[in-house]
Amino acid sequence: MDLYAGVLAAEPRAVGRAISLIENRDAQAEALIDRLYPHTGKALMIGVTGSPGAGKSTLVDRLIDRERGAGRKVAVIAVDPSSPFTGGAILGDRLRMQSHATDPGVFIRSMASRGSLGGVAAATGDAVRVLDAAGYDTVFIETIGVGQTEVRVVELSDLVLLVLMPGAGDEIQAMKAGVMEIGDIFVINKKDLPGADRLRLEVEYVLSFKNPQGGSDEPVVMASAVNDQGIDELAAALGRRLAQSRADGSLERRRRFRIGRELEGILSRKIHELLDVHVEVSKQLGGWIEELYRKEARPYALVEQQIERFLKDRGKEADT
Amino acid sequence: MDLYAGVLAAEPRAVGRAISLIENRDAQAEALIDRLYPHTGKALMIGVTGSPGAGKSTLVDRLIDRERGAGRKVAVIAVDPSSPFTGGAILGDRLRMQSHATDPGVFIRSMASRGSLGGVAAATGDAVRVLDAAGYDTVFIETIGVGQTEVRVVELSDLVLLVLMPGAGDEIQAMKAGVMEIGDIFVINKKDLPGADRLRLEVEYVLSFKNPQGGSDEPVVMASAVNDQGIDELAAALGRRLAQSRADGSLERRRRFRIGRELEGILSRKIHELLDVHVEVSKQLGGWIEELYRKEARPYALVEQQIERFLKDRGKEADT
Repeated sequence: MDLYAGVLAAEPRAVGRAISLIENRDAQAEALIDRLYPHTGKALMIGVTGSPGAGKSTLVDRLIDRERGAGRKVAVIAVDPSSPFTGGAILGDRLRMQSHATDPGVFIRSMASRGSLGGVAAATGDAVRVLDAAGYDTVFIETIGVGQTEVRVVELSDLVLLVLMPGAGDEIQAMKAGVMEIGDIFVINKKDLPGADRLRLEVEYVLSFKNPQGGSDEPVVMASAVNDQGIDELAAALGRRLAQSRADGSLERRRRFRIGRELEGILSRKIHELLDVHVEVSKQLGGWIEELYRKEARPYALVEQQIERFLKDRGKEADT
Repeated sequence: MDLYAGVLAAEPRAVGRAISLIENRDAQAEALIDRLYPHTGKALMIGVTGSPGAGKSTLVDRLIDRERGAGRKVAVIAVDPSSPFTGGAILGDRLRMQSHATDPGVFIRSMASRGSLGGVAAATGDAVRVLDAAGYDTVFIETIGVGQTEVRVVELSDLVLLVLMPGAGDEIQAMKAGVMEIGDIFVINKKDLPGADRLRLEVEYVLSFKNPQGGSDEPVVMASAVNDQGIDELAAALGRRLAQSRADGSLERRRRFRIGRELEGILSRKIHELLDVHVEVSKQLGGWIEELYRKEARPYALVEQQIERFLKDRGKEADT
């Protein structure tokens, strides 16, 4: 069975291999995504972000229970920042999700966030497409931390869950990173810790600015994932929010916006590949750096000149 | 006096206007940077990053005192994340630096980090070039937080100061964001708070992995910026580190690397501008999204096709 058929048959090894191809930017991945494309568009993509230690993994674990209970197949992609120290993904607390390891209706995968910010978001998007084609109904995109990479990764989801916990200045961090803006549902996890009620008030206060017409659309749910408290409320809020965004057209708008972002990302990557082949950026960069370091060239003029040369050469080639 | 002459004459208003042009991606900015380029290369660029609240502004304020005491002209660029809420830079505690407001040897400027990650780093780099040409000896690039944007902005500095404070899980956040890797000097500020010594041990432990050949090159300085304690030690460590990086060639290597990154950035932006004019991305995107949303097209194939068309058209044009 080839990879394409394997993914459509929801063969876990085929799905895993397809995601690895995406992660490694293998040339085969693009053709595969294009072939799978007509089979996508059914899965619901839920981004889960929040500070490290806020309990995102446990919360997702509990939500998997609810999704499975409702008969839906679930996939989780955990996006981890890669560190020059370790060179790979930090799996850590993902291990907790092992409770679902033997359930064929659950697929869990960690992806290292190598490369550029845009590259990470693109790889995540393509991985979701594979899972979508494979028939997973709900795909959770869980991030490790809550910075601009994470915002970029989850902002293209159908729905974003922001997980906060009392203390540790989480709320300030979240606001700084611009995460408050992208959250659709706010979870205050570890609700038994001191400061949970104050945090709730703060979140509601910030949300009141987001909807200046008065009243906030975004539910704030108090939960304790470890004790399985508040999860049914959260699942219900998720369902309501989803129904609402289907009804008012915002889900469709969001998906169109996502497609646009993805297109721009592909365009940008393709152009870079071309430039690398034709202007031989990697090969010539050393010489250009030398000229600039010695102030024998000027940066913008140099680039302008190289682009003109590239367009001439490539244009001729495309003509013949 | 035109802007070029004004910058070279260190006219504060000309310098400020030049930086505004850069910030707004004004077409004039590129020509100005190219003209100023031969006059750059003298300033020392010091990145200062760390979690919000770690006391970076106060620390920079104290370091300005030392630089001025040594007869050097100093500029500070505070890079702030912009928020969809406020739409601008959070100036907040920058105000503390007002103590230097009347000193003509000090230039302080806040830049909002609008746009892409790469765009922010590029704008910061160009702003440094203006300040360099204007004769500022030391340019501090101070970030608000400590995420991937911040890493990207300061990693191109000649020297990076990472400011940590006890408590609040700063060290974990910093390690997650990959900041530990780019730090040259580590400052544990608010050293009188409980946990400062433990944090120092943790930082030294992490640094021991960075230099597996044993022993850490990176100084860890205990400070209390508010009480002006540890600042002379920090200034001395900065001086030593700088002398060392000049001697062992690492400063030169770093600057060449920076030029390379900047070139790649310019190349990428120019190509995007071209594409926007010739493939009319902004104009056509809506139609493409529609086709993809209806599954009537496939993303990678669509982009490939557009690029071929663009190259043919532009190539012909460049030929004539």
